[in-house]
Amino acid sequence: IHPRPSVLSLSPSSLSVDAVGLQRQIDELAAFSDTPAPSVTRILYSEKDVLARSYIKSLMKEAALSVREDAVGNIFGRWNGYEAGLPAVATGSHIDAIPFSGKYDGVVGVLGALEAINTLKRSNFQPRRSLEVIMFTSEEPTRFGISCLGSRLLAGSKAAADALKQAVDGQNISFFDAAKSAGYNICQEDLPNVSLTKESYSAFLELHIEQGPILEEEGRSVSIGIVTAIAAPASIKVDFEGNGGHAGAVLMPARNDAGLAAAELALAVEKHVLASGSIDTVGTVGILELHPGAINSIPSRSHLEIDTRDIDEKRRNTVIEKIQHSASKIATDRGVKLSQFTVVNQDPPALCDESIIDAMEAASRHLNLSHKLMISRAYHDSLFMARISPMGMIFIPCYKGYSHKPEEYASMEDIANGVKVLALTLAKLSLD
Amino acid sequence: IHPRPSVLSLSPSSLSVDAVGLQRQIDELAAFSDTPAPSVTRILYSEKDVLARSYIKSLMKEAALSVREDAVGNIFGRWNGYEAGLPAVATGSHIDAIPFSGKYDGVVGVLGALEAINTLKRSNFQPRRSLEVIMFTSEEPTRFGISCLGSRLLAGSKAAADALKQAVDGQNISFFDAAKSAGYNICQEDLPNVSLTKESYSAFLELHIEQGPILEEEGRSVSIGIVTAIAAPASIKVDFEGNGGHAGAVLMPARNDAGLAAAELALAVEKHVLASGSIDTVGTVGILELHPGAINSIPSRSHLEIDTRDIDEKRRNTVIEKIQHSASKIATDRGVKLSQFTVVNQDPPALCDESIIDAMEAASRHLNLSHKLMISRAYHDSLFMARISPMGMIFIPCYKGYSHKPEEYASMEDIANGVKVLALTLAKLSLD
Ligand SMILES: [Mn+2]
Ligand SMILES: [Mn+2]
Ligand SMILES: [Mn+2]
Ligand SMILES: [Mn+2]
Repeated sequence: IHPRPSVLSLSPSSLSVDAVGLQRQIDELAAFSDTPAPSVTRILYSEKDVLARSYIKSLMKEAALSVREDAVGNIFGRWNGYEAGLPAVATGSHIDAIPFSGKYDGVVGVLGALEAINTLKRSNFQPRRSLEVIMFTSEEPTRFGISCLGSRLLAGSKAAADALKQAVDGQNISFFDAAKSAGYNICQEDLPNVSLTKESYSAFLELHIEQGPILEEEGRSVSIGIVTAIAAPASIKVDFEGNGGHAGAVLMPARNDAGLAAAELALAVEKHVLASGSIDTVGTVGILELHPGAINSIPSRSHLEIDTRDIDEKRRNTVIEKIQHSASKIATDRGVKLSQFTVVNQDPPALCDESIIDAMEAASRHLNLSHKLMISRAYHDSLFMARISPMGMIFIPCYKGYSHKPEEYASMEDIANGVKVLALTLAKLSLD
Repeated sequence: IHPRPSVLSLSPSSLSVDAVGLQRQIDELAAFSDTPAPSVTRILYSEKDVLARSYIKSLMKEAALSVREDAVGNIFGRWNGYEAGLPAVATGSHIDAIPFSGKYDGVVGVLGALEAINTLKRSNFQPRRSLEVIMFTSEEPTRFGISCLGSRLLAGSKAAADALKQAVDGQNISFFDAAKSAGYNICQEDLPNVSLTKESYSAFLELHIEQGPILEEEGRSVSIGIVTAIAAPASIKVDFEGNGGHAGAVLMPARNDAGLAAAELALAVEKHVLASGSIDTVGTVGILELHPGAINSIPSRSHLEIDTRDIDEKRRNTVIEKIQHSASKIATDRGVKLSQFTVVNQDPPALCDESIIDAMEAASRHLNLSHKLMISRAYHDSLFMARISPMGMIFIPCYKGYSHKPEEYASMEDIANGVKVLALTLAKLSLD
């Protein structure tokens, strides 16, 4: 009854990516932003996020996918295979964007996945396992401090569900109130229902810009990165408290300046990271806030958020211990109170699935695209999807490795190559 | 025709300060705040500032003063003397409050001045020179980065008027739009009209909490501080710019982190201040902001605002030079751009007038209050009033020297003593 095409019948020339249409979609999505172009700011459950979600659902419907949305707004578009009862092959990424970032991070893995589906449809391919495109809710931790919120919940993370109970944003709006304002009328009890079983997917793939300079530095000789592992991230929140006071009247020996404690800790993070002995260890103080934040007031409180990552979990955890030791020592030396030192998350690294790596390599070879095996230093929804499904990632070169800023850029040629590798790999895994 | 009372006829017992009423006024004024009690936040031209201004004007009218308000909202309440053509004797302070501060800074010098006037009226004193209470607009630099805005303009500062041309607040609202929203419909051309001539006042006095611990540490043996000089303040704005990027993907050697440059500069400020060799040198980084301010983003921009003061102008300027040198060196070493290093103001110190100091000392002795001659390390509207009038300041002890925070406190006994010294000094200077 069903045709049984070999994936090899999909010749490179039969896979025609609509590059012009894809670029137009990327540009249209970028217009849903709270800051002016070229920057993009799209925060979870904001008005612009809601509009962008509608846009994605409309594209899914145009591609004749059946659309489902779960309680927190993970969006699924399914192309039913001719053995629709089998675990599906899924692919996807996110479309939320941190303040003043760019238009490719995440977006290429959602719009590119839809274009991979459309490309396969145009080539008359018929999937055996269903193919499913996923748009994950809130990969970025911007609003509630929890990264990969949608994929953590899909993977059944109790910690993420618990964290949402107390979660409030910078305006003291709770997660549930924010969700409600975006049309997701949910409560704590609904969260466990978001999780998927390990039988849902036979494979999960994510197409993403590299967000690092390695592929571009290879020049024209390498077109595609194939990820073998995702580095292990951890994030830490720190608060110092001192007496504050008037910047003119309190003499230097009488001060315990919470801002200077924060400055010292920021430099200590850099020092400990550099001392790890490995180029793969990174650490960043992306948030440093002073209270009350007036030029003539000694800071009485400071708040830092620290991100540290490594491909070696043990080495990363050593850095965390050293940061904690420095925070305590700085507090003692400066007479300030270390009122918070919280390791918010400390996720283990993930390995990509061998057979998916094989399929991605075969697809690249079939398309005459040279590839490079590499580590993902940024983490992704794939890190959490790996808990419930074999996982793989495809990287696209990006300009100077720039990401999380307006200058983020990937050429349409490189994006189209990534879409083709994704399409061919989805096709292959669908027939397995 | 006119009575000619000697100031000596004002015996300590004839001066009855209404301490209960004054405390109630202080508490009522504190309720006009954008943050919850015990903190006070009252920002220039905000809704709460407008309400507080009405409150002050109503108290002036209750005291039967003739009320005048200039273009930027400096408020004057005059008690006409029997030789009203002579230069008047003025006293006053401010009521604006930086975010999360207390209820005594400035306020004691406005409400206390009104109570000094009321006390003199109750004792049947008749002034020869008119007595005038001034409430200055925006002593604090919170909203537009310009401290002592009202008194600078009264003293004819062209620099302040010029700075207001470009001035915008954190929400990008111009000074003139903000003024308009508070009911002050002014333009650039109106600013020079705010200035007063050197013939306006024969003396200016300011009553203020000490904002330092010196008087309190003297214990019960000293009740009043008499200021001999005001320390010279300077403020600096610094911006660093780097490439930013993704906190996971950009390896440490490829970074130029604008946030770490800011952290280094903050510590350098402390180092240079401590190296000045004098306890009188202070320096503070009260504002340190990172852009984009996301945990997973390397800071691409940082902004610092630095306050440094000394009673020795040359020594303070040496500190500024060292800070500038450090900023340049940090920028070079870290490969970031020093895109701004602006010395926003660099005011000279002010000396208090000898004959006013004599009058304040005589008043203290007359009231059996022991006093201490001291430096004002915080600066005040008096610093600028000194440019157009002989100037003096009276300090009141305050709890632990706390200021610019909710714990700021002065006892009503100490405040009442300050009001009495002010009243007697005003009376004396009015008759001179
Ligand atoms: Mn991202
Ligand atoms: Mn991403
Ligand atoms: Mn103040
Ligand atoms: Mn003040």
